[in-house]
Amino acid sequence: MRFTSDTTSNGIREQLFTAGGVPAALWTPAEATGPRPLILMGHGGGRHKKASDIVTRAHRLVTELGYAVTSPDVPGHGDRPADETYNRIAIENQAKAEAGEDLAPLIAAFQALVARQTVPEWQGVLDVVQDLPHVGAGPVGYWGVSLGCGLGVPFVAAEPRIRAAVMGLGGSPILEEAASRITVPVEFLLQWHDERVPRAHGLALFDAFASTEKTLHANPGKHGEIPAFELDNTVHFFARHLA
Amino acid sequence: MRFTSDTTSNGIREQLFTAGGVPAALWTPAEATGPRPLILMGHGGGRHKKASDIVTRAHRLVTELGYAVTSPDVPGHGDRPADETYNRIAIENQAKAEAGEDLAPLIAAFQALVARQTVPEWQGVLDVVQDLPHVGAGPVGYWGVSLGCGLGVPFVAAEPRIRAAVMGLGGSPILEEAASRITVPVEFLLQWHDERVPRAHGLALFDAFASTEKTLHANPGKHGEIPAFELDNTVHFFARHLA
Repeated sequence: MRFTSDTTSNGIREQLFTAGGVPAALWTPAEATGPRPLILMGHGGGRHKKASDIVTRAHRLVTELGYAVTSPDVPGHGDRPADETYNRIAIENQAKAEAGEDLAPLIAAFQALVARQTVPEWQGVLDVVQDLPHVGAGPVGYWGVSLGCGLGVPFVAAEPRIRAAVMGLGGSPILEEAASRITVPVEFLLQWHDERVPRAHGLALFDAFASTEKTLHANPGKHGEIPAFELDNTVHFFARHLA
Repeated sequence: MRFTSDTTSNGIREQLFTAGGVPAALWTPAEATGPRPLILMGHGGGRHKKASDIVTRAHRLVTELGYAVTSPDVPGHGDRPADETYNRIAIENQAKAEAGEDLAPLIAAFQALVARQTVPEWQGVLDVVQDLPHVGAGPVGYWGVSLGCGLGVPFVAAEPRIRAAVMGLGGSPILEEAASRITVPVEFLLQWHDERVPRAHGLALFDAFASTEKTLHANPGKHGEIPAFELDNTVHFFARHLA
């Protein structure tokens, strides 16, 4: 674990670091000492560990709940180099879609491939972050929508430290298989007019989670139009389950 | 408007009254003076104005938000006499269901009939309650699930004072028509394993609301098993829209 930056502003400490080749950010209360709940957030496609929605959410969780929040760059995103294999597959998928092939299963297969890399990467990030004295081995939550759902469902299914997860804007038969192995509480966000994820796929993914406590929040609007009030729900959800 | 009881306990004033032949309850903060938001709650089938879930919810809204809450008895329920016509239809429907007819459309038609009576009754309750100095003409919200949804959708569609509504556990083509005339914010509760309302009917009713802000909360479990944390969401929802 190598730190590249350590700054504090408005009561929030932001540390940037690299662990196992993965650049990531960590936010904690400025004066934090001792263990606390930790949220790992997976960013959306084409975005990065410090995308504005990630930072806004992290600041709320740190300020209101005193939690630690960490966010790693996905391969090929943020401060990571372009990945030749992933780039090639993305270009091939684009060509197949232009030739009339259905894009949804191509994206699902692609995200499943990337998840084989990100699941162990994110587990490594949890390891090093929880070794820090101001984070410690408290309960862990996950937040991720869209790409963060495609990578998050296999991560939550594989990682026993995750006690609760907010996910959404995703759905595919591949993800349903992993979801059927998830038993922790899940809050699932679905956009009613999602132009990328068919409504039936999102509903089927919600249906597939084996969790006895799972709650679907569906709102009107397209893929990128989750209403701002869902951030309040995210804060309440984690407060309820990671206290 | 004739008051039959006026008691105060734990900072909450409870007044029972009859208005236009409708027995109803009103809860307000003990020391309330001046106008405040008002919630009208419609109880479930076979229950009454002071059913335990109604009272629990009313107390939260009074204590945490300082709102007024009123709850009328539906015809044939609580302190109201049995209604011969409704009783006869209910018995006929039971016989039809036992003869193999689908019960859902029978219930929907029955609730639509009752709503022709309750919509003006509830408008009358709003009139007299808003004339009280400790309630006044503030913004109004509606809460009702199951029977409270079947009667609530036509009420919210007809009553321009309603600014926000929490409804759920309902769905039928008849209700969809009324829902298409509702434009205020709606929080809609759906039980994923509802044994009385087919899932597709609930999703179709949510789809039918013309509201630009509407949010579907779906949870596992049967008709009567809405999780306790949805009460928190109800409080937050009304606080956001009736402030």
